[in-house]
Amino acid sequence: MSDLEAVDAPIAYHLRRYTKTDGRVLRLYGRQPHTLPVTEDLPPVDPPNPHLRWHPLRQEWVIYATHRQARTFMPPAEYCPLCPVAEGGFPGEIPFADFEVAVFPNRFPGMQADAHDPPGLGVPTAPSNGLCEVLVYTSDHEASYAALSADRQALVVQAWIDRYRDLLGESQVQFVMPFENRGEAVGVTLHHPHGQIYAFPFIPPVVERMLDGFRKTPDLRSDLLRQADDGLAVAGDDRMQALVPPFARFPFEVWILPKVFHAGPWSFDAAEIRSFATLIGKVTATYDALFDRPMPLIMLLYAAPKGAEHVFPFHVQFLPFLRDTNKRKFLAGCEQGAGTFLVDVAPEDMAGRLRDVAVTR
Amino acid sequence: MSDLEAVDAPIAYHLRRYTKTDGRVLRLYGRQPHTLPVTEDLPPVDPPNPHLRWHPLRQEWVIYATHRQARTFMPPAEYCPLCPVAEGGFPGEIPFADFEVAVFPNRFPGMQADAHDPPGLGVPTAPSNGLCEVLVYTSDHEASYAALSADRQALVVQAWIDRYRDLLGESQVQFVMPFENRGEAVGVTLHHPHGQIYAFPFIPPVVERMLDGFRKTPDLRSDLLRQADDGLAVAGDDRMQALVPPFARFPFEVWILPKVFHAGPWSFDAAEIRSFATLIGKVTATYDALFDRPMPLIMLLYAAPKGAEHVFPFHVQFLPFLRDTNKRKFLAGCEQGAGTFLVDVAPEDMAGRLRDVAVTR
Repeated sequence: MSDLEAVDAPIAYHLRRYTKTDGRVLRLYGRQPHTLPVTEDLPPVDPPNPHLRWHPLRQEWVIYATHRQARTFMPPAEYCPLCPVAEGGFPGEIPFADFEVAVFPNRFPGMQADAHDPPGLGVPTAPSNGLCEVLVYTSDHEASYAALSADRQALVVQAWIDRYRDLLGESQVQFVMPFENRGEAVGVTLHHPHGQIYAFPFIPPVVERMLDGFRKTPDLRSDLLRQADDGLAVAGDDRMQALVPPFARFPFEVWILPKVFHAGPWSFDAAEIRSFATLIGKVTATYDALFDRPMPLIMLLYAAPKGAEHVFPFHVQFLPFLRDTNKRKFLAGCEQGAGTFLVDVAPEDMAGRLRDVAVTR
Repeated sequence: MSDLEAVDAPIAYHLRRYTKTDGRVLRLYGRQPHTLPVTEDLPPVDPPNPHLRWHPLRQEWVIYATHRQARTFMPPAEYCPLCPVAEGGFPGEIPFADFEVAVFPNRFPGMQADAHDPPGLGVPTAPSNGLCEVLVYTSDHEASYAALSADRQALVVQAWIDRYRDLLGESQVQFVMPFENRGEAVGVTLHHPHGQIYAFPFIPPVVERMLDGFRKTPDLRSDLLRQADDGLAVAGDDRMQALVPPFARFPFEVWILPKVFHAGPWSFDAAEIRSFATLIGKVTATYDALFDRPMPLIMLLYAAPKGAEHVFPFHVQFLPFLRDTNKRKFLAGCEQGAGTFLVDVAPEDMAGRLRDVAVTR
């Protein structure tokens, strides 16, 4: 129930696939081949069956995953399902005594490849047959992405690339979005360093709008790179640029843009992988330095939706949630009800303040 | 600097206009004529000058109100700027010893009618020349909308109607949105019962999308009213219906729909005003009963944008932020990054649970 592959990539790595007791496939990415014995896996749960309902007014799908309420597994108080599991230890998602980078399908997902038979209602419905995965950056519960070695950061990027390839290979998948929710202000309760990957069976509304935006302003990427030189740069090198967009919606919002067009990181060469991997770490470390506390944020990797590989440039958006040391950005009536963001720091000033504390490692 | 008018309306009321020391016009709505003397008004501040920047990727305006950071007024710790002000007391926004319902322009607004000279940038900019107002429901700091008398609730609705008429009369205004942010989870720090009214010089993106949705599904309003009979009803009477839409995005999301088409509450008769006013109170009281604690929520009044009065039916949306007694709904990676909402209670179950605790007063 396990196989090991030496992967031919710009930076070589090894991939082990292990099928868990409930049929989910766990992937272990490593610079070294992973050969540790299996320890204690989680008990199987009933297969989830989420569905979609069409919102005719907003014209978007809404995901219903009602099984998420019915979790019966009762772990100990200090339990972390993302930590490595010793022989005879309490079961976890990654039943091995150690690992480098791990990816597995979410146990209580909002999307499930074999979702079926959505309810018949007064509005259109569909099976929520996308995929939701969890990507664990390290076996060290106390670490953070920024604290990882440059080589481990590159391995995380390579795991993203591998998942992009597989998930975009699924016929129903239209868009794949790796992201990280970070901090309790964003609702994170699991502090082990990890991100998620959602593979949608439709192009979600924000991405549809962005795709249309890139079609209408094909020079946007190069315009932004030029404006970085006019005071909006935060960090970067020959291959990647971190900058505050002049139309930032969140306080201290930063985007990372490759200096040449890529539809996704899957076409990065080894130098681009290394530059991109370390720049993500530098940006998050800079955020943590800004107010001398971990910045709650959402990090979003935006690669081209299927079929838009010549239009949609790959980039990363960081959406932070602190306006000041003790002032949160809230998304209230104006943002939720109108969709219009109210910002009280000018993007030029955001960039200057971030440069002042920039962590260059 | 003050005038008093007896207003001919489906339910008669009096309106006093008072020009504050900084030129802002305070409106006092009452069943009784307001004739109290002026007490202590706030000192003037520099006129704000917010601007808009075009976000070419999301294709929406972003509001920049950087003056909001520069507040110098240092009030005492327990200060509430919405409380009535006694003779010789600490100054407030409403410099009278008492009032019924009050409306005034926001002192630090994201939109300002005479905004001018936006900065020239690499993206389109414009003056943020809309209007932002604050509507105070009562002089009682400890009250809530639901706790007001039915007659006072009706007066609040009449104040909304008056503001709709005036603000839609401004040539640059395209859409007017009264709303209430409620609870610290939504970022509210001012606990005096109040709402806000934003008058936008553009149709905001969410409303543009809704307008398009109503054009494509002209029967949506009547379909929803019919589905209320199929188990989605929460409360209502002959004139108004509160229901959970079958495509709810927020936990326990409720909409209020008039039973006949209105573009806005300005065409309500006296019975509709009373029904609507009390139903808002019943829904909020029901929310507070659901988990036996005040429900953090956003309440949005959606009337037709200018020019869409035959297409866009007036309705109210309540967006609550508690999934369970101690579980908040967070808007994280999936919602912010993709625009897709993940819901873990079925709308049918939301409606049933709300009916079980419905407050009918």
